[in-house]
Amino acid sequence: MQSPHPALAPLEFLIGTWRGRGRGGYPTIEPFEYIEQATYTPGPGKPFIAYYQKTRRSGGNGEPLHSEAGYIRPVGSGGAELVISQPTGVVEVHTGQVADGRIDFRTSLVGAAPTAVDVSRVYRSIQVTAETMKYRLGMEAVGQPLQVHLEAELTRLAGS
Amino acid sequence: MQSPHPALAPLEFLIGTWRGRGRGGYPTIEPFEYIEQATYTPGPGKPFIAYYQKTRRSGGNGEPLHSEAGYIRPVGSGGAELVISQPTGVVEVHTGQVADGRIDFRTSLVGAAPTAVDVSRVYRSIQVTAETMKYRLGMEAVGQPLQVHLEAELTRLAGS
Repeated sequence: MQSPHPALAPLEFLIGTWRGRGRGGYPTIEPFEYIEQATYTPGPGKPFIAYYQKTRRSGGNGEPLHSEAGYIRPVGSGGAELVISQPTGVVEVHTGQVADGRIDFRTSLVGAAPTAVDVSRVYRSIQVTAETMKYRLGMEAVGQPLQVHLEAELTRLAGS
Repeated sequence: MQSPHPALAPLEFLIGTWRGRGRGGYPTIEPFEYIEQATYTPGPGKPFIAYYQKTRRSGGNGEPLHSEAGYIRPVGSGGAELVISQPTGVVEVHTGQVADGRIDFRTSLVGAAPTAVDVSRVYRSIQVTAETMKYRLGMEAVGQPLQVHLEAELTRLAGS
């Protein structure tokens, strides 16, 4: 495998396949627990990381819940940009700061297809310590104020 | 493999892995030829298709060029919505009409991360006849009027 582009060094802590569990909630829905797999793959000789994740309900019939795909790229000194698309018809553009295995992304734009749910603001914070990734996602949507929607803890698969 | 969600029937002609060649141009760049692989995969029991593609330069060292990821979902009667994210820091939201193996997508929104190239409008037309997919992508960007940027012809891989 080609080694990651040198400009990816500040984001290298993300690279791998991650699995774990999370929980979600929002004032308009029942709380739920989920199982997640996420991959962060360096672009082929290019300075970006391709990101893909999918989740299933924890317990019951393990039905598929969410998925999303996007790209992260380093910008400037300690900065990063994240773009994401979702099968719900939502796209997000974020700018973030990277320091000590942590990235804090704030929405610069949320877009929605005409029939998609109205999401107006999102933040995504990712913290990697050794082989553990914790993230928190907050959302302002459907008339509710900005608040935590998802929290999860994932473990990097060995060799990934 | 789970069969596609029944609501995907109008979009089923997209499903598969496609390979072929295309050419690109724009007033601000040298014309180029490329090799592409694109996959359209039905969501697991859900009414969407996950889309992923990547291209390499045709000839020379075959360097990686572009990639993008997104989702297509059927809406209403004969309609579809498409969301895409790109490692260049661009997201697109499209609405389209589906008829006779053809989809014409028009931009409802193009978003760009702060350091991304300025793209203001995109159209994407896809035509599938038997095992051949032709597409054309037009773009209004960097001050240039809306015009064809990419044209390609792909073939569905057997069994995909």
